[in-house]
Amino acid sequence: MLETSGVAATETCLLLKCENLQQGSAFKARGATNAVMSLSDREAAAGVVTHSSGNHAAALARAAVARGIQAHIVMPSNSARIKLQAVRALGVEPILCEPTSASREATAAEVQRRTGATLVHPFNDPAVIAGQGTAVLEILEQIPNVQAVVVPVGGGGLLAGTLIAAKSLRPDLLVFGAEPQWADDAWRSVQSGKIEPALRTDSIADGLRTPLGTLTFPVIRSLVSGILTVSEEAIRRATKQLASQVRIISEPSGAVTVAAVQEHGQLFRGLRTVALVSGGNLDDFSLLS
Amino acid sequence: MLETSGVAATETCLLLKCENLQQGSAFKARGATNAVMSLSDREAAAGVVTHSSGNHAAALARAAVARGIQAHIVMPSNSARIKLQAVRALGVEPILCEPTSASREATAAEVQRRTGATLVHPFNDPAVIAGQGTAVLEILEQIPNVQAVVVPVGGGGLLAGTLIAAKSLRPDLLVFGAEPQWADDAWRSVQSGKIEPALRTDSIADGLRTPLGTLTFPVIRSLVSGILTVSEEAIRRATKQLASQVRIISEPSGAVTVAAVQEHGQLFRGLRTVALVSGGNLDDFSLLS
Repeated sequence: MLETSGVAATETCLLLKCENLQQGSAFKARGATNAVMSLSDREAAAGVVTHSSGNHAAALARAAVARGIQAHIVMPSNSARIKLQAVRALGVEPILCEPTSASREATAAEVQRRTGATLVHPFNDPAVIAGQGTAVLEILEQIPNVQAVVVPVGGGGLLAGTLIAAKSLRPDLLVFGAEPQWADDAWRSVQSGKIEPALRTDSIADGLRTPLGTLTFPVIRSLVSGILTVSEEAIRRATKQLASQVRIISEPSGAVTVAAVQEHGQLFRGLRTVALVSGGNLDDFSLLS
Repeated sequence: MLETSGVAATETCLLLKCENLQQGSAFKARGATNAVMSLSDREAAAGVVTHSSGNHAAALARAAVARGIQAHIVMPSNSARIKLQAVRALGVEPILCEPTSASREATAAEVQRRTGATLVHPFNDPAVIAGQGTAVLEILEQIPNVQAVVVPVGGGGLLAGTLIAAKSLRPDLLVFGAEPQWADDAWRSVQSGKIEPALRTDSIADGLRTPLGTLTFPVIRSLVSGILTVSEEAIRRATKQLASQVRIISEPSGAVTVAAVQEHGQLFRGLRTVALVSGGNLDDFSLLS
């Protein structure tokens, strides 16, 4: 990341934590690796299982391969081709299920019963949450005088991990979650004080359509500086700007944080701000032009 | 850049120096900035002038703006739109000329006569060559045990600067230049012992079609480990791979080094190799898919 000296009161100094350049093109490597490496040898011997339509699938497969254990990856049959391929490229054949939460969970539970594998949930898992929190530790190391951090929020694993890590070291650091207006369940949950369901499933930011988890919501509710929602138009624009101006490829879910800093600019005036960009698993490059 | 421990004799450890993520999306910022910052106040007061169809144009404009002096940027009328826009975005209106070397040089000379501006040649200038050499200084700092470096060669400013900097600190470091087979003038020049002209002008790597300069050729001839030529097909493939696997956007001229490591793989077996990727000024994203 680039560092600059003082930030004028009328300007924002925006730095990017490029998790799209991470292994597997997403921050998900952090949580999945921490979960797999935290298993006892006996647990590890029975393998791991998860259900995910997104980047957690490949991240868990990669971590399992690194430890030399078996990974059972349940994915909805309508998952993005690039995300199915990412799992297959690691030598793991995804177990396809119907594209519903019920089918995903039932299929994963069946695998768990049959094999004794440990379920590594994409976000509602303490080791996964802790692993995702390592991104902000790196941000604090690289930019000690950072004043605000913006991370995407879907199920809330990254946001909860970021809050736990950041608030214990730097209670004054502003930490925001960013999500599409069309998947504003985290915003509604913080308002209402209970986990709200996602109401629509058509945001271009497909990685952020998930409702919060029972472990992530309480952390977010008590520590977050705010949930920022952004329009589909702003997400598309930020995805294009990252390509045309920063020369990196981000999927729309990964560009949501940059869109949030742009649409809520007044919040960030005069602040040295880091937006976490993740991930890069885009296969339709026509979105970049 | 990522570091790994030992490299197996049958494998290549390839690391990327991402100059496409540099200011202006190219290493050209280094040489232009060094040249502008090296001017005396009296010289600076009369401004700078250059002729360039490529990334040096915007790099010089940016450096001049940073020093608060005037930049006269002569560009062929058929320059890529993205490269004209990059200059205009800095508040400098390019002076358009005919797309021939003669017209470029005559127009720049006329500006020089009229204004007294200092000519900052894209590569045949000691301060520019020295500035481009700073990239390998960073490589040596970040990867002290690097064994081979591959940089693109057009006019030879980057390759000459890399050789001067690298060979004075690490005489054992292998330093290769990479260029398209369709613009193999550097390869032919090293073979024949004199500066050979470019014979065709249709390589997709438009930044590398320039012949070597009188200052860069002698350095390259005496110090380079070799000039590696690559096919158009390999350049296109490397450009796509950087997008699909590394999630960065490179123009074909910038991906030539990665193509060279792939097409000349036997040279790099067992070696910790850094390929310099530059630049990122691509406006036709259909090349990525």
